Amino acid sequence: MKLTILGCHSATPRAYHNPTAQVLEMKGHMFLIDCGEGAQIQLRRNKVKFSRIKHIFISHLHGDHFFGLVGLISTFRLLGREAELHVYGPKGIKEAITLQLKLGNSWTNFPLLFHELESDQAETIFEDKTLSVTTIPLNHRVYTNGFLFQEKEGERKLNIEAAVKAKIDHSYFSKLKQGFDVKNMKGDTIENAQVTFPPDPPKSYAFCSDTLYYPAIVPQITNSTVLYHEATFLQSHEELCEKTKHSTAAQAGLIAKAAQVGTLILGHYSGRYADLNDFKEEAQQHFDTVELAEDGKVFHFD
Amino acid sequence: MKLTILGCHSATPRAYHNPTAQVLEMKGHMFLIDCGEGAQIQLRRNKVKFSRIKHIFISHLHGDHFFGLVGLISTFRLLGREAELHVYGPKGIKEAITLQLKLGNSWTNFPLLFHELESDQAETIFEDKTLSVTTIPLNHRVYTNGFLFQEKEGERKLNIEAAVKAKIDHSYFSKLKQGFDVKNMKGDTIENAQVTFPPDPPKSYAFCSDTLYYPAIVPQITNSTVLYHEATFLQSHEELCEKTKHSTAAQAGLIAKAAQVGTLILGHYSGRYADLNDFKEEAQQHFDTVELAEDGKVFHFD
Repeated sequence: MKLTILGCHSATPRAYHNPTAQVLEMKGHMFLIDCGEGAQIQLRRNKVKFSRIKHIFISHLHGDHFFGLVGLISTFRLLGREAELHVYGPKGIKEAITLQLKLGNSWTNFPLLFHELESDQAETIFEDKTLSVTTIPLNHRVYTNGFLFQEKEGERKLNIEAAVKAKIDHSYFSKLKQGFDVKNMKGDTIENAQVTFPPDPPKSYAFCSDTLYYPAIVPQITNSTVLYHEATFLQSHEELCEKTKHSTAAQAGLIAKAAQVGTLILGHYSGRYADLNDFKEEAQQHFDTVELAEDGKVFHFD
Repeated sequence: MKLTILGCHSATPRAYHNPTAQVLEMKGHMFLIDCGEGAQIQLRRNKVKFSRIKHIFISHLHGDHFFGLVGLISTFRLLGREAELHVYGPKGIKEAITLQLKLGNSWTNFPLLFHELESDQAETIFEDKTLSVTTIPLNHRVYTNGFLFQEKEGERKLNIEAAVKAKIDHSYFSKLKQGFDVKNMKGDTIENAQVTFPPDPPKSYAFCSDTLYYPAIVPQITNSTVLYHEATFLQSHEELCEKTKHSTAAQAGLIAKAAQVGTLILGHYSGRYADLNDFKEEAQQHFDTVELAEDGKVFHFD
C-alpha cells in the first residue's frame, strides 16, 4: 500500500502549494482520490503513469477537490486513451464534466463512466476479488463523502520448504494457497497449516476530507491501517470550524484515537499557518503516530 | 504596453510547461487573455495583483485556453473580491462556469458579468476613453476569436520649458494637452504646436490563437505594434495543420509580413519539439522581428 500526495492544501492553489489530490496504490490498483486544479501536473511531476488510473474518487464539488478533473480527462483523450475511466462523485459531477467537453467539441474516445453518489449512508461503490471501496458520509458545507479502501484477506503463503519436504506435488500449490488440505505423492493427507503461512493482514485506508469534527465516522473507520483526516485549522482558530465545517488538527487526533487507527496523516492545511509542525504537535496531544502530508511526499505502508 | 506570458504551450499542461494565458497591461488596464489550467498559479508566481484584473478574454472553449477560469473566479471569491469581473468568451462559457459554482454552492459575492460572443464578424466588445478591444474572427475547430487591443490617440505632451517661456499660465496646460491654442498672460494667442509635442503613437496588440493559416485577418491587424500568432507546428508537420486547424511558424511569419506588424511573438508550441529556436528560424524566413513566447517571460513595448 503506497500513498502519493499530489496536493494537500486547502481552498486555493498557491504559487508552490497544490489543492487536494492523491494517489493510492493498493493491490495493483492506482486510485486517484480528489483532483484539485493542477493534479495532472502533479501526476507528471511525480511520474505516475496516467494509463494506470482507472478509478477516480471525488469527495465533494468544491473547486479545490475537483477543478482539475476535466483537464485530466481531456488530457487522457489527447493521449489517445482507450481504457474505461470510472469517476465516482456527488450527483452533478457528470453534467459539469460533460458540458465542458461538449463545449470544446472534445468528447472522449474512451468510455467515461460516471457513478454519481447521493446517499447519506455508507455504500460500497467498487469491489473486486482483492478489495472494496466504501463511502464514508462526512459533515461539510456541501454533500461530501470520504472513502474507505479495504483490502480483502489474501491467499495463504506457501512454505515451499515444508511443502517439498512433505512431498506435495507442485500442481497442488494453488490449492494450498487457497487454504485446502491436500494429499501428497504417497497419498497421505497434509494439513494446510503445516505447509503454509497465514496471509498478510488486510490493510485499509480511510480518506476523510473535508469535514467538521464528526465522531459518527469512528465505527466505520475503526482499526484502519491509515487514516487521512483533514486538519484545516489549529486550535487557535477552532471557532472557524463550525461555520466552515472543517476540523482542527487536535480533532483529527481525537478521531484517530477513538478509531484506534495505525497511522494518522494530516492534510488540507489552511494557508494562514507558517509551520506545519504545529499541526503535528496538536494532533499528538491525543494520538501518537501522526504524519504530515506534503505535496510530493510518498508513504509506504508494508 | 507590457505583456506577461503565463503559459504558451499547446494541448495539455506538462510538468513545467503551462497552457495559454497571458496578461496585457495597457493604459492602466490589466487584461487577462485566455486562462488555461494553472493560470492562477502562474499569476501568483509572476506576482500579478489579482485585484487589478477586471476583464478576461477567452478565445475559445478548448481546455488549454479556459479550464483555469473557474478556479481563478473561485479564488477571487475566496479572497473577498468585491469589484466587478467581466468575462468575454464564446457562447456557453457562462453556463460552464455558473454550473460549477452552483454545484459547489460557491456563488461569487462580486458581480460576475459574462459577455458571450457568437458573431462571425469583428465586433468591438470593450471600449473606454483610452482604448478599445475588438474580436478577430479566427479559423479553428470550434468557434474562436482573437482579440485586437488598440490604444486611442492620447493627449499632446506639454513642452514645459516652451510654455513657461511663452508666459502661458499653468491653468491653461490641460487645454494645451487637449490640442487647443491658448492666450498667454500678455493676451497674445499662442499656437498649440509651439508649446506641445505630439502624443505617443497609439500602440496595438493583436492576439491570434488558435487558428489555421488565415490571411483574412490581415486587413484588421495591419500595422499592429505587436502580433501574437500561434505557431503550433514546424514545417515538417505542416500536413497536420488542416486537420487540427493550427498554423506553422512560417505561416505566422507570412501573416506578420503581410500585416506589416512591428513585432511577431510566437507561441502555442506543440510539445513534440525540443528546440523552440526552430520556430523562430522558420518564421524569420518571412519576417525579421520575431520573439519567442516563454512561460514567465515579460515583454515591454514602450
